[in-house]
Amino acid sequence: MENDFIRYLRERIPGHPQVVLGLGDDAAVLRPNAGKQLVVTTDMLMDGVDFELTQCDPRRAGRKALAVNLSDLAAMAARPVAAFVSLALPRQGGQQVARDLYEGILPLAAEFEIALAGGDTNSWDGPLAISVTALGEVEPGREWRRSGAQEGDWILVTGSFGGSILGKHFDFTPRVREALWLAKHCEVHAAMDVSDGLSLDLSRLLVESGKGAILSPERIPISAAAYQWPAGSTVPAKALDHALSDGEDFELILVVSPAVGQTLVEKQPLSVPLTMIGRVQAGAGLWVTAPSGDLAPLQPRGYEHRLQA
Amino acid sequence: MENDFIRYLRERIPGHPQVVLGLGDDAAVLRPNAGKQLVVTTDMLMDGVDFELTQCDPRRAGRKALAVNLSDLAAMAARPVAAFVSLALPRQGGQQVARDLYEGILPLAAEFEIALAGGDTNSWDGPLAISVTALGEVEPGREWRRSGAQEGDWILVTGSFGGSILGKHFDFTPRVREALWLAKHCEVHAAMDVSDGLSLDLSRLLVESGKGAILSPERIPISAAAYQWPAGSTVPAKALDHALSDGEDFELILVVSPAVGQTLVEKQPLSVPLTMIGRVQAGAGLWVTAPSGDLAPLQPRGYEHRLQA
Repeated sequence: MENDFIRYLRERIPGHPQVVLGLGDDAAVLRPNAGKQLVVTTDMLMDGVDFELTQCDPRRAGRKALAVNLSDLAAMAARPVAAFVSLALPRQGGQQVARDLYEGILPLAAEFEIALAGGDTNSWDGPLAISVTALGEVEPGREWRRSGAQEGDWILVTGSFGGSILGKHFDFTPRVREALWLAKHCEVHAAMDVSDGLSLDLSRLLVESGKGAILSPERIPISAAAYQWPAGSTVPAKALDHALSDGEDFELILVVSPAVGQTLVEKQPLSVPLTMIGRVQAGAGLWVTAPSGDLAPLQPRGYEHRLQA
Repeated sequence: MENDFIRYLRERIPGHPQVVLGLGDDAAVLRPNAGKQLVVTTDMLMDGVDFELTQCDPRRAGRKALAVNLSDLAAMAARPVAAFVSLALPRQGGQQVARDLYEGILPLAAEFEIALAGGDTNSWDGPLAISVTALGEVEPGREWRRSGAQEGDWILVTGSFGGSILGKHFDFTPRVREALWLAKHCEVHAAMDVSDGLSLDLSRLLVESGKGAILSPERIPISAAAYQWPAGSTVPAKALDHALSDGEDFELILVVSPAVGQTLVEKQPLSVPLTMIGRVQAGAGLWVTAPSGDLAPLQPRGYEHRLQA
């Protein structure tokens, strides 16, 4: 990393009780809390895929790069500890872009008390790529996995879905506080954050659990943005479609026992709504209850990562 | 990450005693060893900067991306634990590139018993970028820092320097085993790996220590490759210049007391030569002993990371 930039970052980054040695050596040294397990996630955001640098403030791109990783930690019920940021910067104006990115990253790091403990800052002839690795901690055996859904469980979600492209995909609040509260106060059987689309991500959770689910479409919490995208659409079916497949909502899917689900939905203990959207069942696949009362299959849709041969 | 690719990786990646939950959930879960500190490093390698994808086997690029991170762990005297690999793949042929990269990463991971515990695999219209984050462990207070060099200390290096562009920058062996042996058997005051150039990286270590050094140019171990680059050069002064400034040698600079230095140089306990190249002194700057016996300043040179305004 460039010396001047390391100096700038060292001045801007506050200390953290678990950081023994931060930026500027060959590696960072962290002090794990005794008896905890380490939770690690990494996500790379790319210009032209996850944001358009010509059309957005780099601070929002920087914030998003950290926020998506915080969302993954939340989905595991992990408390954030430290983040590492690697940048491939366009040569032209790279220094300003780097500073702007950090002006988005730093306030979010402060908000969630996650240390920026290291990184790698490079220039090249390619477009901007931001790779963030985030570390968190959880009590042994208390991490939320995708694989724990049980037959009869309720499927809850935080917040609402659809149309995140209108702004939420940048400005969402990762559900870290909500996850830590839930992990402390109740048993969650399985969890996942929604990055690629509610129906697609839920179907992935169910595959890992070896289960299926029946969704109640009328219960899906639809964002106002899902009605505005594309501009002026007022067809509820279309808005539901967006809610089920748009992705980048960065809300949590939470699978809990019916008793826990009932309590959570009644008490609404979080600052964000918790909504019951369906039940886990034996067998595979996603189903919806049609107006007739019959079950109809729901094709999971969303953003599929495909590698070309 | 693409489902097929996750399946392929899950089949190829062996288990690891510290990995509780590997690839395929929102994050990985690791079991730190009790009482250890965590060492974390991250490096991003880019097509056109760190390798030329049109001119090299992607396996070598993949191997290098992990190896440079292992070299950083070695420079901290940390035992490797787990690595996380994020890829920005060119759209055309990306799947094959990804597999080839992992065919370079996996054998090196096995050799150094580091778990591949997670990652993020993406396609875009940009060139290939590989971001690796590596985690290691060290006893509290036993990490090697750049800042511990003391007046009178000997400066040792592993291996030889210069001309790594001819092949070593891909095929080097990160000095993990050497570092762990040294950390166990003797006191190392300061250390660093050489990525940007021997003289430049040494000067950075000295700045962090608030010291200077006198180098004995005739002692610098010069690689055979430094004489071959550019092809056929036989001028010793030029080869020395390459050794001092080429970079990507990924050897270790080790700063030790004269007593420890003498023993190490005499006994040569490692499978790679240890050479004494100079002494730490009070004051700043790098100096060399000229043929006249006088001291002459040595301008640190190497690869400088610069961000354009």
